[in-house]
Amino acid sequence: MKVSIIGATGYGGLELIRLLHQHASVDIATLHSFSAQSETLATFYPHLKDLEASPLEKINPTEIIEKSDTVFIATPSGIAKDIALPYVDAGLNVIDLSGDFRLKDRQLYEKWYGKSAAPTEYIAKAEYGLAEFREKKETTFIANPGCYATATLLGLAPLTKNKLIDPTSIIVDAKSGISGAGKVPSASTHFTETNENMTLYKMNSHQHIPEIMQQLTKWDESIPAIQFSTSLIPITRGIFTTIYVKPKNPITQKELHTLYESTYENAPFVRIQPENVYPTVKQVTASNYCDIGLAYNEKTNVITIVSVIDNLVKGAAGQAIQNLNIMANFAESDGLRFIPVYP
Amino acid sequence: MKVSIIGATGYGGLELIRLLHQHASVDIATLHSFSAQSETLATFYPHLKDLEASPLEKINPTEIIEKSDTVFIATPSGIAKDIALPYVDAGLNVIDLSGDFRLKDRQLYEKWYGKSAAPTEYIAKAEYGLAEFREKKETTFIANPGCYATATLLGLAPLTKNKLIDPTSIIVDAKSGISGAGKVPSASTHFTETNENMTLYKMNSHQHIPEIMQQLTKWDESIPAIQFSTSLIPITRGIFTTIYVKPKNPITQKELHTLYESTYENAPFVRIQPENVYPTVKQVTASNYCDIGLAYNEKTNVITIVSVIDNLVKGAAGQAIQNLNIMANFAESDGLRFIPVYP
Amino acid sequence: MKVSIIGATGYGGLELIRLLHQHASVDIATLHSFSAQSETLATFYPHLKDLEASPLEKINPTEIIEKSDTVFIATPSGIAKDIALPYVDAGLNVIDLSGDFRLKDRQLYEKWYGKSAAPTEYIAKAEYGLAEFREKKETTFIANPGCYATATLLGLAPLTKNKLIDPTSIIVDAKSGISGAGKVPSASTHFTETNENMTLYKMNSHQHIPEIMQQLTKWDESIPAIQFSTSLIPITRGIFTTIYVKPKNPITQKELHTLYESTYENAPFVRIQPENVYPTVKQVTASNYCDIGLAYNEKTNVITIVSVIDNLVKGAAGQAIQNLNIMANFAESDGLRFIPVYP
Amino acid sequence: MKVSIIGATGYGGLELIRLLHQHASVDIATLHSFSAQSETLATFYPHLKDLEASPLEKINPTEIIEKSDTVFIATPSGIAKDIALPYVDAGLNVIDLSGDFRLKDRQLYEKWYGKSAAPTEYIAKAEYGLAEFREKKETTFIANPGCYATATLLGLAPLTKNKLIDPTSIIVDAKSGISGAGKVPSASTHFTETNENMTLYKMNSHQHIPEIMQQLTKWDESIPAIQFSTSLIPITRGIFTTIYVKPKNPITQKELHTLYESTYENAPFVRIQPENVYPTVKQVTASNYCDIGLAYNEKTNVITIVSVIDNLVKGAAGQAIQNLNIMANFAESDGLRFIPVYP
Repeated sequence: MKVSIIGATGYGGLELIRLLHQHASVDIATLHSFSAQSETLATFYPHLKDLEASPLEKINPTEIIEKSDTVFIATPSGIAKDIALPYVDAGLNVIDLSGDFRLKDRQLYEKWYGKSAAPTEYIAKAEYGLAEFREKKETTFIANPGCYATATLLGLAPLTKNKLIDPTSIIVDAKSGISGAGKVPSASTHFTETNENMTLYKMNSHQHIPEIMQQLTKWDESIPAIQFSTSLIPITRGIFTTIYVKPKNPITQKELHTLYESTYENAPFVRIQPENVYPTVKQVTASNYCDIGLAYNEKTNVITIVSVIDNLVKGAAGQAIQNLNIMANFAESDGLRFIPVYP
Repeated sequence: MKVSIIGATGYGGLELIRLLHQHASVDIATLHSFSAQSETLATFYPHLKDLEASPLEKINPTEIIEKSDTVFIATPSGIAKDIALPYVDAGLNVIDLSGDFRLKDRQLYEKWYGKSAAPTEYIAKAEYGLAEFREKKETTFIANPGCYATATLLGLAPLTKNKLIDPTSIIVDAKSGISGAGKVPSASTHFTETNENMTLYKMNSHQHIPEIMQQLTKWDESIPAIQFSTSLIPITRGIFTTIYVKPKNPITQKELHTLYESTYENAPFVRIQPENVYPTVKQVTASNYCDIGLAYNEKTNVITIVSVIDNLVKGAAGQAIQNLNIMANFAESDGLRFIPVYP
Repeated sequence: MKVSIIGATGYGGLELIRLLHQHASVDIATLHSFSAQSETLATFYPHLKDLEASPLEKINPTEIIEKSDTVFIATPSGIAKDIALPYVDAGLNVIDLSGDFRLKDRQLYEKWYGKSAAPTEYIAKAEYGLAEFREKKETTFIANPGCYATATLLGLAPLTKNKLIDPTSIIVDAKSGISGAGKVPSASTHFTETNENMTLYKMNSHQHIPEIMQQLTKWDESIPAIQFSTSLIPITRGIFTTIYVKPKNPITQKELHTLYESTYENAPFVRIQPENVYPTVKQVTASNYCDIGLAYNEKTNVITIVSVIDNLVKGAAGQAIQNLNIMANFAESDGLRFIPVYP
Repeated sequence: MKVSIIGATGYGGLELIRLLHQHASVDIATLHSFSAQSETLATFYPHLKDLEASPLEKINPTEIIEKSDTVFIATPSGIAKDIALPYVDAGLNVIDLSGDFRLKDRQLYEKWYGKSAAPTEYIAKAEYGLAEFREKKETTFIANPGCYATATLLGLAPLTKNKLIDPTSIIVDAKSGISGAGKVPSASTHFTETNENMTLYKMNSHQHIPEIMQQLTKWDESIPAIQFSTSLIPITRGIFTTIYVKPKNPITQKELHTLYESTYENAPFVRIQPENVYPTVKQVTASNYCDIGLAYNEKTNVITIVSVIDNLVKGAAGQAIQNLNIMANFAESDGLRFIPVYP
């Protein structure tokens, strides 16, 4: 299979290249960038020296359609909604890593992203690509989920799908490494401001809130809203999500584990931790795993769910490839079943 | 005023020395350690070279009582309950930084600490030293609060004292830097396991839970329990506490700020942030401040409180000195009113 | 004494404010910034809340001369050379933290800084302010040394002043924390690029090379050049300098220590480490100390000198205040004799 | 090919498992540990959950010899010298990652390691496995080089093999991440002591000095000694080596690059950087590359060589597998040609 990557110089694009390099059934046909052309990526990213020699090309849809079967779009939100259209029209596999086709409600997109939304008919065609819960496995146009949304939804799915929790009780305290902010330097990613620090940002206003709500309410329409906070911690990769919910009825630790284990029985990338074990973010670094730990507190009637991912892999490029695998009838874990980098 | 420090080689003791060095009304008379004697601290801690030349002595109560007016005890929990007694009996000012005299209920101590509790009459004499809310300012025996407890209680005080919140709704997601684990190396403080990582530990079992509950129920006895989680983040100093509560009645952002500002009007070390501003943990590094930010989410009816401290200062040595200042009728901020180290 | 700070919003300016806050004989009269005006610093730097309320003002020399005895200039290189002049003319104490008045040779400045140099007569008036080796203690116009230059020169002074080393043998391998790059975000200070990384930059072209050479050749004119490398390590504050030199004649470990201890006998901020002990950069954090360790290798006839400072204190604001103390006949360590922040 | 790993619970062993997982021609037959038995590695290292299910077994040479073709020994120095012998005798491929068989001179081993040396005849059989410069490609018993030695020797090889440098001029300033110290916690790996810090350790006494000298003098016997320093920087993985040498005759930047490029023409894991580009340690993270940058300073007649590796891969497990590939007539880069993890 031949793939093209648009937005190859960002962290999402780089991670696609890193992962696809090991995928036996996929070849990178072309790489595209708005900012740099004709040079190779290794000019800017010396870790790629000798490993990726394709030149960075400008985006010519006719050529891309000719050369590739699949297009990954790894541009910031607000760009894919325009540039994705020709490939969808041409029937290529299209996987968009940005937020542009995730929200079915255009007004919601415009409110939370502050930009005009993609055309209605394309939004309708796009399948929300939470890989473990995709409904139409044959769809060829995927809106790949956000990183926070992935960790949160995989953490909440078993309980919400089974309508086991008080719908007003969901509180998500999510923490992210700095790579989630992308490669453009800013005050909030400046080492001296970030290291030895922790910051809560976008209080009650992170754009993944409507994305999470859209999926949660599919599973349990009685959920009216979620309390969702995002903080930056001084690590490069990783999302650590601590989720608090109240079950409608008391539940045992054992029932909780059984529920999660059975839900994810056939999910190669969700690993439910044993009782009394909670995952650390480092145990999934550079891998496509989502590791989940569970506790029930009888005194407060609160379930704590700890869900961790690598934001650039399971939260972006890895899940995108997992979606491609499903779409192309490859094994779901093709090219993704490697051991996390530890320590 | 002459002070002795017992447990001078731990992080709490070192921080007392650092801070007292700048306190105009206090002189260090003697330093004591179990592990090292006759040498100076600078032998082990070269940052003290030329600055602290007192030898490390063994603990001789008679001599200490002779030479000092005040004793700081900065040993791990389980030790102060024995060694503090002679100084209390002798009427010295005694400030214990450990957990040994905090819990009024001996059974609770024995359950959460797994050790036998201090004698009842001494527990009765000890005042819980949450400096901003001390009741008996003349007390000379202080159980200095825990670091997590300090950040949590200062964050919750205005709402709980005024009984404004649903008592079953309190969820505290607290994160700590690694210095909170002390100076003894272990797997959980090993750089390679800790850096670029985040870990939730002591799920529903941190010993600060009963300490927080004891104080909260003084303010609002209807609170049955709190959901309280502690995680380690890869920073040296600092506690970042995100607290979620549901108000009994909707509240405006403005009312919330007014409530907190008026509560802490005369508290020199609590700084309520402006509306829509949330504190970072680095803005209090190496200082005695507790900075608090506040948000109300109408959609979920949840108040988010962000409360940050330096665990070694406001969470330990700094608050201990603040307590001494109150006890000794010094100005409350004597020796503590310096600018945080930033960046 | 009343002081004004021009460039108060940079890291050098912030550190001056932090340190002067504790200086008993100095008051901050006015703060000045190019970028922000009328607001207080605490608007941008919340660590200063309740601690520094002076508004940021524009730079009006007449007013500054009226209100202040001393002006600290903490702007980037290329600015002080113009704005410092009126205060020098007016006879105020002027301490410039930038590189603009350090090099006596204007051509050298223009070559290494790529900017036009300051007027000759002002360069002539400026005294290079390496505090431990100042010649004219009465001078009121100080070119405060660079951070790398300070660590390197204090490390080399005893050997070079006594002409003990092979003049062609000096190799300096210097490492700096990221705050040395200032507060403006860039790719090289981006957390994700910087953390878990190390980078050698400005190979053989760092602008502190001519500054170091100027002073070294004052001490030993036979030195033709030095090999000097600068690397960034993922810490916020600190310079760690490893210096290699060959003595003209073999020297014992003991002679080496005696030489350094006698040279710095009366220097309150240089601490020679005991034999076989080498300083870590953290043992001087947030302090004005320069700690030096020494080793002689008989097999290679190489002396290794390890010299560490906090780049923002001894390498900038702290040494500037030390220079003011000397200039104003305060005790040299006034306002600077506090314990480093450790851990 | 079937392999056994002795010392599977240390960082070297874990990295062998991570890398071999992707090696198409190798299967892990058995895993062995002194400390833990019968459980699986995933019990202690949750990153391995679902990926490595072999139990940890005790070391039974007869069984190992029966089940495996190759034994990797990843124990600390001082252990392999005994336990390696039966596998060597049985003619298995044996690759020892420790220092026990590297030094041909037993007295040197005993002096620098402070332990009794391996038996002479086994030392004689072992080939020093600096993969790019192995002499006997058919050897089946490999003493895998030390991490510092690898980075240093690859950096110096082209100049020393061609006898181009002043033999008394070699100065190596090497910095390592903390994983080099292994997984056992100690004061020098404690996060609070290590983060935001840098430390020079084992001044003039690191055990890789004789190892480097042994190889350098093979290439140029006129080299009498090297000045070699090792410092810890607060990163997990990586070695950053800055090497200073004086050429016998002036050399141009171009000649220098040509020399290195031609030396490493057929070396798949050494990447010479373009002129004026210097490698960062992060560009090789989790990969088997050694990236080298070069500069010549005319003023000082000093060549600066920057050589970076991941200490756990090219400095240990990766090079061990590269050695196995050579030994087994696999392609040299089999299982190792993946893209470094960046950022």
